Amino acid sequence: MMDQFDAQGRLRHLITLEGLTRNQMLSLLDRAETFLRGPGELPAASLALQGRSVANLFFEPSTRTRASFELAAKRLGAHVLSLDISTSSRAKGESLLDTIYTLEAMQCDIFVVRDAQSGVPDYIAEHVEDHVHVLNAGESHVSHPTQGLLDVMTMRRHKGDTAGLVVTIVGDIRHSRVARSAAQALGTLGVGELRLVAPASLLPMPDEFPGATIMSDADEGVADADVIMALRIQKERMAETDVPNREEYFHRFGLDARRLARARADAIVMHPGPMNRSVEIAPDVADGQQSVIREQVTNGVAVRMAVMEAVSASPAEDPRLLTE
Amino acid sequence: MMDQFDAQGRLRHLITLEGLTRNQMLSLLDRAETFLRGPGELPAASLALQGRSVANLFFEPSTRTRASFELAAKRLGAHVLSLDISTSSRAKGESLLDTIYTLEAMQCDIFVVRDAQSGVPDYIAEHVEDHVHVLNAGESHVSHPTQGLLDVMTMRRHKGDTAGLVVTIVGDIRHSRVARSAAQALGTLGVGELRLVAPASLLPMPDEFPGATIMSDADEGVADADVIMALRIQKERMAETDVPNREEYFHRFGLDARRLARARADAIVMHPGPMNRSVEIAPDVADGQQSVIREQVTNGVAVRMAVMEAVSASPAEDPRLLTE
Amino acid sequence: MMDQFDAQGRLRHLITLEGLTRNQMLSLLDRAETFLRGPGELPAASLALQGRSVANLFFEPSTRTRASFELAAKRLGAHVLSLDISTSSRAKGESLLDTIYTLEAMQCDIFVVRDAQSGVPDYIAEHVEDHVHVLNAGESHVSHPTQGLLDVMTMRRHKGDTAGLVVTIVGDIRHSRVARSAAQALGTLGVGELRLVAPASLLPMPDEFPGATIMSDADEGVADADVIMALRIQKERMAETDVPNREEYFHRFGLDARRLARARADAIVMHPGPMNRSVEIAPDVADGQQSVIREQVTNGVAVRMAVMEAVSASPAEDPRLLTE
Repeated sequence: MMDQFDAQGRLRHLITLEGLTRNQMLSLLDRAETFLRGPGELPAASLALQGRSVANLFFEPSTRTRASFELAAKRLGAHVLSLDISTSSRAKGESLLDTIYTLEAMQCDIFVVRDAQSGVPDYIAEHVEDHVHVLNAGESHVSHPTQGLLDVMTMRRHKGDTAGLVVTIVGDIRHSRVARSAAQALGTLGVGELRLVAPASLLPMPDEFPGATIMSDADEGVADADVIMALRIQKERMAETDVPNREEYFHRFGLDARRLARARADAIVMHPGPMNRSVEIAPDVADGQQSVIREQVTNGVAVRMAVMEAVSASPAEDPRLLTE
Repeated sequence: MMDQFDAQGRLRHLITLEGLTRNQMLSLLDRAETFLRGPGELPAASLALQGRSVANLFFEPSTRTRASFELAAKRLGAHVLSLDISTSSRAKGESLLDTIYTLEAMQCDIFVVRDAQSGVPDYIAEHVEDHVHVLNAGESHVSHPTQGLLDVMTMRRHKGDTAGLVVTIVGDIRHSRVARSAAQALGTLGVGELRLVAPASLLPMPDEFPGATIMSDADEGVADADVIMALRIQKERMAETDVPNREEYFHRFGLDARRLARARADAIVMHPGPMNRSVEIAPDVADGQQSVIREQVTNGVAVRMAVMEAVSASPAEDPRLLTE
Repeated sequence: MMDQFDAQGRLRHLITLEGLTRNQMLSLLDRAETFLRGPGELPAASLALQGRSVANLFFEPSTRTRASFELAAKRLGAHVLSLDISTSSRAKGESLLDTIYTLEAMQCDIFVVRDAQSGVPDYIAEHVEDHVHVLNAGESHVSHPTQGLLDVMTMRRHKGDTAGLVVTIVGDIRHSRVARSAAQALGTLGVGELRLVAPASLLPMPDEFPGATIMSDADEGVADADVIMALRIQKERMAETDVPNREEYFHRFGLDARRLARARADAIVMHPGPMNRSVEIAPDVADGQQSVIREQVTNGVAVRMAVMEAVSASPAEDPRLLTE
């Protein structure tokens, strides 16, 4: 595992939320807050990356995460190079590392990487030059650190300190990088109880989520929760479960108004998107008063701006992220 | 039908040219004129959209219209996010509205939408927040308002007031959003006579083009015309007509030098592109002295700049588009 | 053949290196040197193309060359329009010239063109308006002028004057635009000996490379060389040779440490990329002390910036490229 901090303990890459201190995490979240603006206002902008080039390397298709990183980079003044490279073309063409070395030689110094295979962002980070930064934009089922940050940012904005909260994540926990990164963030910032609810075959391996409560009954899972996060369930995954179809999944695990009523009255509803409406979440809940799903998207751009600014800041310019 | 004006009567979206007053239309055309530059000069630029983000949503493939909107937005200082979303992937992925809500949450505040289905730009406009603007970049056979504006802009630059002109449109009128938007623009600005010429099965439904002269003989149609606009004919449409092949289409409806000679000596020749040379238009006419086809393209960027500036202007900054 | 110089002898297009004087070439190389920066420094930038629009027209897929031109244009302040147009869609859609005329009418004034067919950049250059510039980004097996420039730039930075050097190019010479452009550059700047090494069926036609030494034995070819450039060999080409497979190709023509040891001790190793490691070059040579392959990539951006600046400079502003 690549060390994502430099010799001075400063964040150099963001591959995983594991290993970030509470202060480093809070520093990123506080900085992200400064990038929020009201609807209709000009988006926040800065010149932190002016003249720099950011390469978006999405080896797995993505619209929303790519757009979020692209806007974040552009609003910091960077040039953005978007390369859509399917895994198959990677096989035919030059090696992954040669692609990276080539872009590095063109003076791209932030790589935003999404890959269906585990280990790829780390592998790239191990091979780039000292001044180059790798940001994990989604790695297999393993890690999605900016998603984890935007999720805790959203919780904090509504609930303040996360330390006393009951947070329930419902869905395909086993294959979810979103659940893993959220759990890591909450592990560092503190959480009252983290509940993971899934059909038996989609629960995580034992010890993957230390301290979490593993459950298979969604009604129990959401009872008195402060935060409920529904995860996208993919049809091909459903086949691996004892859930025969979408209707049955919705009945057993979907977040509808009836089930939501079991949570605290001020509970917030989250989803990383894209949503399968009427599968893991009812439309009236997705669009309801308690939903903060669109805020998550807004916070995502802010978090990505904060992360890109942090990794690219030189120590002289910005002492905020020094290790404690 | 969504009202495309705000409570103060200002243009908020541009979905259709229907309902624009003569003054509003002239105001856009006058503003577009100020964005024209000579060949080799720097393109016109402004900071009207500086820091704003424009999302190009093309659910139907397009090269030229997308490039035109992209350049218009960039020359006004905007960041442009281009999303190519085929209708099939729309079916598999999240709902159209969720895509829109996501981009809106990322603070994209102008959506440029092209769709093969009728009603989509309107549907999006009904659901976005107050500060967000929807521009129709081509909607089924129904509406293509910036094309209509660039067409009348081109006519006015050559002929002055359109009120006395004989304007002839030749081709697949039935399926043409270009013809519909041009007719709406001319309906508002005035026209001497609007003639629509097509094979019988490609003529519009009765009452679709009130006041227009419907004809099936191209020689008669172009006689003494001031403006002749040839439309692209698609092979699959030709099969629905009594025209057996391209040669026959060219013979009966194509604009060649012989047919053009029946129009006024100073008639101008237009085409919305992309052209099927030797099908609806002869190459020597497309490239000839009377052709203003490339000017249409140039005027298209200028019109799109004017429209984007108009919808995004705050009343304090720009009183030009107040309702009269 | 289009004249790529204007009436004053200034470079207007860059279609081929043929016809560039030594002084013109040196002027471009000297200018490119000023665009180099150390690793981690901000990339060089200028406002030479500010407000201008550059259209990337890649009718043949390319990642690295397109990225290089895109970054070069953006770092000069241009807006970049990237159009991926496969040859097949070109056949269905409008004519190539109509696409060009359309983009020209949108005030794109630099066209970067890659095409698998010979003659396309030249054909476009013949048809554009006076203020528009065409840059060849790779044309069939014929010409790749910015590659030729970056190759001699790389040689000069390591070896100074090329006039006394032994330069060996190994690989599919017959189909290589890279070899042709390098040979043209060296022909103008001077070279001690240019050796071309290939399997018999991949050697060039007689008289294609006047003055070059044609060889079929790679060990002899690299002996005492100052510069060795390995070319990518495509599997489909290998079938045309007497080389049965990749292992055999590597054995006979691949650049490994043993073979490299026959060259001068300070010889540099080049490759235009993308590399087939263990086919035309051994990984330890590609990444070794003598390899300048990544520098070639860096120099490529600098050369493209210099070329774009040169063609778009007005005489009043920049007298550097006046003919002598």
